[in-house]
Amino acid sequence: MSQSDPASPTQPRPTARLLLSARDRPGLVAAIANFIYSNGGDVTQADQHTDEEEGMFFQRVEFRLDEFELSRDELRAALADITNSLNMNCSVRYSDEERRVAVLVSRQSHCLVDLLGRWHANELPGKPVVVVSNHPDHAELVGHFGLPFHYLPVTSETRQAQEAALLEVLSEAGVELVVLARYMQILTAQVIDAYKYRVINIHHSFLPAFSGGRPYHQAHARGVKLIGATAHYATVDLDEGPIIEQDTARVSHRDGLDDLERTGRDLETVVLARAVRLHLLDRVLVYGRKTVVF
Amino acid sequence: MSQSDPASPTQPRPTARLLLSARDRPGLVAAIANFIYSNGGDVTQADQHTDEEEGMFFQRVEFRLDEFELSRDELRAALADITNSLNMNCSVRYSDEERRVAVLVSRQSHCLVDLLGRWHANELPGKPVVVVSNHPDHAELVGHFGLPFHYLPVTSETRQAQEAALLEVLSEAGVELVVLARYMQILTAQVIDAYKYRVINIHHSFLPAFSGGRPYHQAHARGVKLIGATAHYATVDLDEGPIIEQDTARVSHRDGLDDLERTGRDLETVVLARAVRLHLLDRVLVYGRKTVVF
Amino acid sequence: MSQSDPASPTQPRPTARLLLSARDRPGLVAAIANFIYSNGGDVTQADQHTDEEEGMFFQRVEFRLDEFELSRDELRAALADITNSLNMNCSVRYSDEERRVAVLVSRQSHCLVDLLGRWHANELPGKPVVVVSNHPDHAELVGHFGLPFHYLPVTSETRQAQEAALLEVLSEAGVELVVLARYMQILTAQVIDAYKYRVINIHHSFLPAFSGGRPYHQAHARGVKLIGATAHYATVDLDEGPIIEQDTARVSHRDGLDDLERTGRDLETVVLARAVRLHLLDRVLVYGRKTVVF
Amino acid sequence: MSQSDPASPTQPRPTARLLLSARDRPGLVAAIANFIYSNGGDVTQADQHTDEEEGMFFQRVEFRLDEFELSRDELRAALADITNSLNMNCSVRYSDEERRVAVLVSRQSHCLVDLLGRWHANELPGKPVVVVSNHPDHAELVGHFGLPFHYLPVTSETRQAQEAALLEVLSEAGVELVVLARYMQILTAQVIDAYKYRVINIHHSFLPAFSGGRPYHQAHARGVKLIGATAHYATVDLDEGPIIEQDTARVSHRDGLDDLERTGRDLETVVLARAVRLHLLDRVLVYGRKTVVF
Repeated sequence: MSQSDPASPTQPRPTARLLLSARDRPGLVAAIANFIYSNGGDVTQADQHTDEEEGMFFQRVEFRLDEFELSRDELRAALADITNSLNMNCSVRYSDEERRVAVLVSRQSHCLVDLLGRWHANELPGKPVVVVSNHPDHAELVGHFGLPFHYLPVTSETRQAQEAALLEVLSEAGVELVVLARYMQILTAQVIDAYKYRVINIHHSFLPAFSGGRPYHQAHARGVKLIGATAHYATVDLDEGPIIEQDTARVSHRDGLDDLERTGRDLETVVLARAVRLHLLDRVLVYGRKTVVF
Repeated sequence: MSQSDPASPTQPRPTARLLLSARDRPGLVAAIANFIYSNGGDVTQADQHTDEEEGMFFQRVEFRLDEFELSRDELRAALADITNSLNMNCSVRYSDEERRVAVLVSRQSHCLVDLLGRWHANELPGKPVVVVSNHPDHAELVGHFGLPFHYLPVTSETRQAQEAALLEVLSEAGVELVVLARYMQILTAQVIDAYKYRVINIHHSFLPAFSGGRPYHQAHARGVKLIGATAHYATVDLDEGPIIEQDTARVSHRDGLDDLERTGRDLETVVLARAVRLHLLDRVLVYGRKTVVF
Repeated sequence: MSQSDPASPTQPRPTARLLLSARDRPGLVAAIANFIYSNGGDVTQADQHTDEEEGMFFQRVEFRLDEFELSRDELRAALADITNSLNMNCSVRYSDEERRVAVLVSRQSHCLVDLLGRWHANELPGKPVVVVSNHPDHAELVGHFGLPFHYLPVTSETRQAQEAALLEVLSEAGVELVVLARYMQILTAQVIDAYKYRVINIHHSFLPAFSGGRPYHQAHARGVKLIGATAHYATVDLDEGPIIEQDTARVSHRDGLDDLERTGRDLETVVLARAVRLHLLDRVLVYGRKTVVF
Repeated sequence: MSQSDPASPTQPRPTARLLLSARDRPGLVAAIANFIYSNGGDVTQADQHTDEEEGMFFQRVEFRLDEFELSRDELRAALADITNSLNMNCSVRYSDEERRVAVLVSRQSHCLVDLLGRWHANELPGKPVVVVSNHPDHAELVGHFGLPFHYLPVTSETRQAQEAALLEVLSEAGVELVVLARYMQILTAQVIDAYKYRVINIHHSFLPAFSGGRPYHQAHARGVKLIGATAHYATVDLDEGPIIEQDTARVSHRDGLDDLERTGRDLETVVLARAVRLHLLDRVLVYGRKTVVF
């Protein structure tokens, strides 16, 4: 299969996307709106949230660059002047940037196949550039999609060396986002810190219920009437990272462990794909243990 | 029972809410942001949507008035200058305005009881001021909640006169929003036009499926696996008005007509209450047959 | 308001309902089917589940009594012969029995109002006979529905005496099922044991997430994208009882604590009402920490 | 990729599955239970439904064959004696039968890829044996999964000849179930009648809303807040066949047509896979325009 075009077909005209956060104060919205307008930008979407309890301001603004008068370097510099003076954090991304993604996987293939299928059908932003696994099983499958596959086995003794090799693979492939598509290994701080809030994990429960291992076994033993899946940024505190997306599905006493796992796989693939999509559209802003998802 | 306080406990500091729509062009966001900021307003929430196909711009902005330097009359005038020059439609509402609501009901009481209970518990914005019914059944119930009840029976022969009486009741009570809480009568243009996009109806199906009469009978006959409810603005084209909110619930072959109706009632109450809430928080903007729900 | 008729309008012809459980072995289904048929019963619904892991058999059978040749006493005796010989646990209930229900409540009224409204509209089986609260707030509301209201305040020092008074109220009212409609007090073993698997609690989270106190605060702090509610049988292990029903609703960063509580109330009322209904239709069978819900 | 084993890993011991329907009368349950028990069968699951309005009885019984004393031929004959005398319709299937499935597809591949992935992961019953398309696009993809691909283009002029060719392909492959995985052609009576209630279609709306062509366009124009998908048996009345499974997902004004289609694809794949699974586990019984789904 041929590699899909990374540019999303639904946004042909390039846009800039700002993600802003700051201690709340009057004038933040006006400052950004004026900057964009006075330089010829055309806002296509703007979303703002104020957390009244924390006194925090968050904004996502997307604007067209067709008539924008500043180069991308000039934009970044001019914007920094404004955000510095207002004490705002700001990230700038462009819709036509190439976003290089690695997928890490273990034995179960459903999330991997689902993501590769979406990229193949050109319906997910980003460009998959490498797949890494601690098992050799999916080499052929990945090859069908025209992607390099790295088999990096790991034990608790070899973890540090394996992660060093992983980091090298990611670095050489120019990876920006790491997707843990049911990768059943814990990543230590050396990987997590290098890709802070750029590692997305799918946990197969509605966290914080059933954190840790074998959540479907836990759910089955507890007799819940719903199962769930949670996509979150990986942090060194296992299953404690900021949640991006969750969903649940009904189950009943008729569902054995096999049925929970089968139903759960459908949840996992959809929830993970939604989270990857939101991240790559620059819709997720982390603060504390939480996310704002615009 | 005593009447509940109409002011929502969650927004103690008064805010202004602007709902704007216009043919899309650069500068709209900046113009509004500047107006608010330069007069001392503090934006607490802003949401914007551009319909690229239609070339339309929509925005909802809410801002605190604590430090705002214009009176409400001055605000309205100054804002009109801006919106006229930019060809924008604009509505201005205040969070501390009294929003007087009438509920129209027939024999079934579940939506009526649900709404009155929410107002009693102070969890729904707006102030119920009158209940009208074409049946006498719920007079006592409404009396418990301390509200006037008007019994206005109707037949196809008396419809015009009954609607005239209804309009008089609404007008005397200073009603702004009319909620059809399973009111099983068609309203003609004389009422609809007088309260354009201010009459909310609950239809007991996921429109456009099963429009018209007896939707649960239709759903049962068709053997669907989901039933639904739809809250929409009433228009003279029955069941064709702009949709505000919808939801569905699973049913199975085990569910007889009674079960569909029972399950459906829970959907109807929740969907109608959500729509009333959205309307009274000025979150709904109608365009064409559709709504933008911020 | 007048008291509603406890008989469900949808099942006018009386039926018997058997709930059976046993170690699995061949012939259980046939033995029960033969017993019913040979005595002139007509099965209207039968549902069976085998837990293959545990080797357990569960069945619910409902059959019409129009042509049944045994009296209710004879039925019980004849059935005991069969179930004893096959080592089955069996409960027998009749659709026309009066099922007397107590509702316990604290300050929040939404579940109480919802349940009383359903009984008033004749849509929930069972007959409410008494409301007990540790706060005096809802006396008038309960009076409107024509029910006795008992105010039994409690502190940690007076718990034992208050529970003794509660047990007396329940006993005098001939209560069979106790519904904790956001009753914010822990019941000790003296109540729980007296009404084993006959006390239904609503917990305002998707257990086992956010067990214990203030679950909406916990959910808000954790930044979840779903909130939930769980109806379960109360046991002495708080929030650990067998789950009858659960549901979830989506929330976002926009939802403050107030919004979580408001959205949650809609979940709580519906989930609790569904659980009460299932129990009173004899659809719930407890085994271990789990339930079979037919 | 190698072909997956058609036997489901979760039911290693073979079972027989009876699907029964009859005019309701006493004794039906007992007759079947006795037949199974007296011949050494062990019921693992039994589910019964009586449609009181129609006076119809439906049952699904599954029982283990380990100790069953009749051969499969003997079973069929003995059972026919009973069901004939009681005027019951009865189908008998075995869990270890090979169920040969054809998938028909047009340009869109998501349902095809999803189904092939599930079979590959051994999580869906049945054995895919052939893929037919009116476009050549997916030949290579299908080849990766080791399946024959037949390209049968069609125009309104050539429909009859193309369907004849299709029928030959199906017949030669020994196909029992035909899955229309977004096959965008109408099948005429010559195919439908040959595979009565054995052709499953996925329609991309919550039928009966938006039947006919381009349902996402219709949904977008109507401004609905939910989109849906419906799996049903294909009949000659387009989009009118008995519904097996449906589901919905929330959408908003922010969702353009592309977004509706993307969200809809996730619904379509899951709803179709569920319907195929239910059919192949012999859980679906058609009566009139409806289904009983055990």
